[in-house]
Amino acid sequence: MLTTLPLTTVIYVEASPPSLTDNVADLDRLKAALSTALPPQLAKQPLRSPFACLAKTAASFRSAGFKGWVVVQILSSHLELIDFFAEQPAFLLGLALDLGSTHLEASLIDLLTGRILARRTALNLQVEYGADILSRIHFADQDKGLKRLQQAVIKAINDLIKDLCQESAVRPETIYAVTVAGNTTMTHLLLGLSPHYLCREPYIPLVNAPDPLLAVEIGLRLHPQAKIWPFPSRGSYFGGDLIAGILATGLDQAEQTAMLIDVGTNAEVVLGSSDWLIACAGAAGPALEGGVAKMGMRAAPGAIEQVSIDRKDWQLCWRSIGDAAPVGICGSGLIDMVAELYLARIIDLRGKFQREFPGQSEKQRSFIKKHLLQREGETVFVLTQRVAISQTEIDAMIRSKAAMYAILETLINQVGVSFGELTQIHVAGAFGKHINPKQAITLGMLPDLPLTIFNPVGNTSLAGAEMLLLDCLLWERAKAICRRITYLELNVNQEFMLRFSGSRFIPHTDPGLFPSVPRFR
Amino acid sequence: MLTTLPLTTVIYVEASPPSLTDNVADLDRLKAALSTALPPQLAKQPLRSPFACLAKTAASFRSAGFKGWVVVQILSSHLELIDFFAEQPAFLLGLALDLGSTHLEASLIDLLTGRILARRTALNLQVEYGADILSRIHFADQDKGLKRLQQAVIKAINDLIKDLCQESAVRPETIYAVTVAGNTTMTHLLLGLSPHYLCREPYIPLVNAPDPLLAVEIGLRLHPQAKIWPFPSRGSYFGGDLIAGILATGLDQAEQTAMLIDVGTNAEVVLGSSDWLIACAGAAGPALEGGVAKMGMRAAPGAIEQVSIDRKDWQLCWRSIGDAAPVGICGSGLIDMVAELYLARIIDLRGKFQREFPGQSEKQRSFIKKHLLQREGETVFVLTQRVAISQTEIDAMIRSKAAMYAILETLINQVGVSFGELTQIHVAGAFGKHINPKQAITLGMLPDLPLTIFNPVGNTSLAGAEMLLLDCLLWERAKAICRRITYLELNVNQEFMLRFSGSRFIPHTDPGLFPSVPRFR
Repeated sequence: MLTTLPLTTVIYVEASPPSLTDNVADLDRLKAALSTALPPQLAKQPLRSPFACLAKTAASFRSAGFKGWVVVQILSSHLELIDFFAEQPAFLLGLALDLGSTHLEASLIDLLTGRILARRTALNLQVEYGADILSRIHFADQDKGLKRLQQAVIKAINDLIKDLCQESAVRPETIYAVTVAGNTTMTHLLLGLSPHYLCREPYIPLVNAPDPLLAVEIGLRLHPQAKIWPFPSRGSYFGGDLIAGILATGLDQAEQTAMLIDVGTNAEVVLGSSDWLIACAGAAGPALEGGVAKMGMRAAPGAIEQVSIDRKDWQLCWRSIGDAAPVGICGSGLIDMVAELYLARIIDLRGKFQREFPGQSEKQRSFIKKHLLQREGETVFVLTQRVAISQTEIDAMIRSKAAMYAILETLINQVGVSFGELTQIHVAGAFGKHINPKQAITLGMLPDLPLTIFNPVGNTSLAGAEMLLLDCLLWERAKAICRRITYLELNVNQEFMLRFSGSRFIPHTDPGLFPSVPRFR
Repeated sequence: MLTTLPLTTVIYVEASPPSLTDNVADLDRLKAALSTALPPQLAKQPLRSPFACLAKTAASFRSAGFKGWVVVQILSSHLELIDFFAEQPAFLLGLALDLGSTHLEASLIDLLTGRILARRTALNLQVEYGADILSRIHFADQDKGLKRLQQAVIKAINDLIKDLCQESAVRPETIYAVTVAGNTTMTHLLLGLSPHYLCREPYIPLVNAPDPLLAVEIGLRLHPQAKIWPFPSRGSYFGGDLIAGILATGLDQAEQTAMLIDVGTNAEVVLGSSDWLIACAGAAGPALEGGVAKMGMRAAPGAIEQVSIDRKDWQLCWRSIGDAAPVGICGSGLIDMVAELYLARIIDLRGKFQREFPGQSEKQRSFIKKHLLQREGETVFVLTQRVAISQTEIDAMIRSKAAMYAILETLINQVGVSFGELTQIHVAGAFGKHINPKQAITLGMLPDLPLTIFNPVGNTSLAGAEMLLLDCLLWERAKAICRRITYLELNVNQEFMLRFSGSRFIPHTDPGLFPSVPRFR
């Protein structure tokens, strides 16, 4: 049994039948019966009956003998009576959606029990109109561009819902509530709102906190009265996905200072507790996912995710996801590899390949000779016949890790705390799931703290969306987070630029910050 | 300038433009600016932006330089931002509608000033499917019957709106709010709700208090976000038209006991004050309007509305509405005539024609001979060549007046007050406007009170609808009236039947109740 009140719930009501001395109308009788059956925290909320389903609801109540189960949507200012069942429904469905720019991930949840029936991932079909956010914002400015982008993502969601429903043997019409955690651009495109100003100084969204809307208003095929609760965003670069993440990790209610790191296209970082919240975002991610590194790819079968160099016998070991034939390298594999290259002294503290250095052994020399080869006119470190990494890619990786550390340092410094005071660093997403924090520390990407501080938390956007479905109070809490949070703009931040320069060494220009990392001269 | 807050209003807002240090989104900025500009009584209401107009509202605010006039709809639980103007609008329109079963009457009102721009009457096109309420309820049960009835009245209203707008040189899209006062059946049919149970014991409406709905949901062509506020009803036989009437006359706030009489198809009577309200309705009207009396007609050009018999010179005088050639007789004319026939002793105290009686003068005898003729096998009193009245019609008239008086007496008696305690009797509609209370007293239709007590108040349904448009607080007051009012069911009331029998004489079996009326033996 749920201990929270979901966004949509079902309540048993029973009224005495009408008579000449009790001529209250059907719908008013239903409302009166409901108001006595409501849980205490909702008892004073006004009851509304949307016109579109008024006749059906009232007639069902009458034909069921003035008793049965009424479906109630809980909004901040009032409750809506949106359906009625003579028999107790076996389930009442909600959909939680993580609206990513490349992937969608959704859970189908029974709102009566909180049970997850199915969870699935799908491509965001908007990729056809632009791989990244910026190109989609520009595409939206074209004739019919915005409409096409909206239709593409709506089709992707409808298809995803169909698959989820098929898997669970239910109909989409039994879904009453949808929560959506997406970044600000994705949320604008979903709602058909122009993202034009999102990427133009001073980066102003059309709306940060949209009110719940009917699913049918944007073309989602669910129950006719199903509503969408889009997570509010803090600004153009700090979206509802992060707000959901804060909810999921409870950062806004933490008694001691903690941090949330979410690396996707951008690195987004939140620092805080129940007393204060500060956040920033910066471009630290691309080198870690696809796109920048030629061999880079998402964490998927065939991606090399772990790399180690045995520095005694000089053997290279790697593992690919699903033990499939390796076709690329994912973020965690890249971090592992660059860290191992540093520890094996195949790159120096600037991240540059070096074939020779003082104190080199014969085995080491032949290992380097075997793996550091010339391909297509540049030096590459070869992992497998197909997978190799170039100096250019390592440079990009170093810039990314420098950006990440500079972001964390700038944020920490802004509020006058030190890394040592953090009780937890929640690391979200595939990044958090797959990286080895020890290696990220070796690179100087994450601060040199005990490894138990780092807490991989998975997809926090989806987790926050799931939580909201099952607890209506979180809607106001999410809006309160948006109001509380201080957003630090890094694009114009001099301190960040200085810290970024200092971080472009392995592990750092100030190695005293990383006592656990070996130093080579 | 209005001193009340209309249902829809316009409020000037101004915000500082966004910057890197103030990145609040456009719509959130508008809401924040509005919340500081709201009058104190609305300051704590939640603000909502309906999804359908969110993008337009936010974009207009931005393009106007973050200042201008926002159109706000005031609902009980929240406010809705539904439009935005860069320039101050010259007017903001609302429509008040009296939704009668035969006629519609509507006023087009500027919500900024309270000024009535135009007022018009039109036929309710539903008459095609049934002259009276009962026949329409039965028609609604037929295949597509309900839909046709709804479409007929919607067409009539759309046409009426077009005419009103043409007359005022405005567009229907500038109408933002509609208030509708209709009886319970008319309101059901307007909303497309089945009236099936309204005429079946125990006479239960589908809904008494519908929430405001979008005009477009029932097919009215106004501003896309225009809303309809249908007056709540108390039950099947006590509709929103009467609730509007109570508002218009202020009966629910009267310091001393007063009465409201509205005679349409039924006679509907409310008695009360700020302390209590009691009401009932009964079939007293038909004989006074069209339908029952062969020569009966609505108060329209050509209707005889005044009749007098000069009892010195024995001359018959009458006046027709608009001084047009007489084609029938309206309710007030009928009351005048029957009262004059009684005073001239051409009918006796039972309402029966009498040619001869003791003390008759020669002039009187020849007057009777001239006017009391045989036509089509029955005795008729002839007013003009075309207009005459038969015994059957007089009998019907007597039954109507008896019903009316019995209703008033039963109601008065129910709460233990006497007619003498009433400070005012508001008489609504054409009935109130045209009748001569003196003659109604002669007949024993209205109680024998000083004539100043009787207050003709015109169309109180329309007046109440107009008032609601201009004062949002009246919406909750109307619902409170519905909750407060005690409805007395006459169909099962023994006392009413007894009082009805006693009232079938002129003026009454107990002439002591009518000291001002001459008695003949």
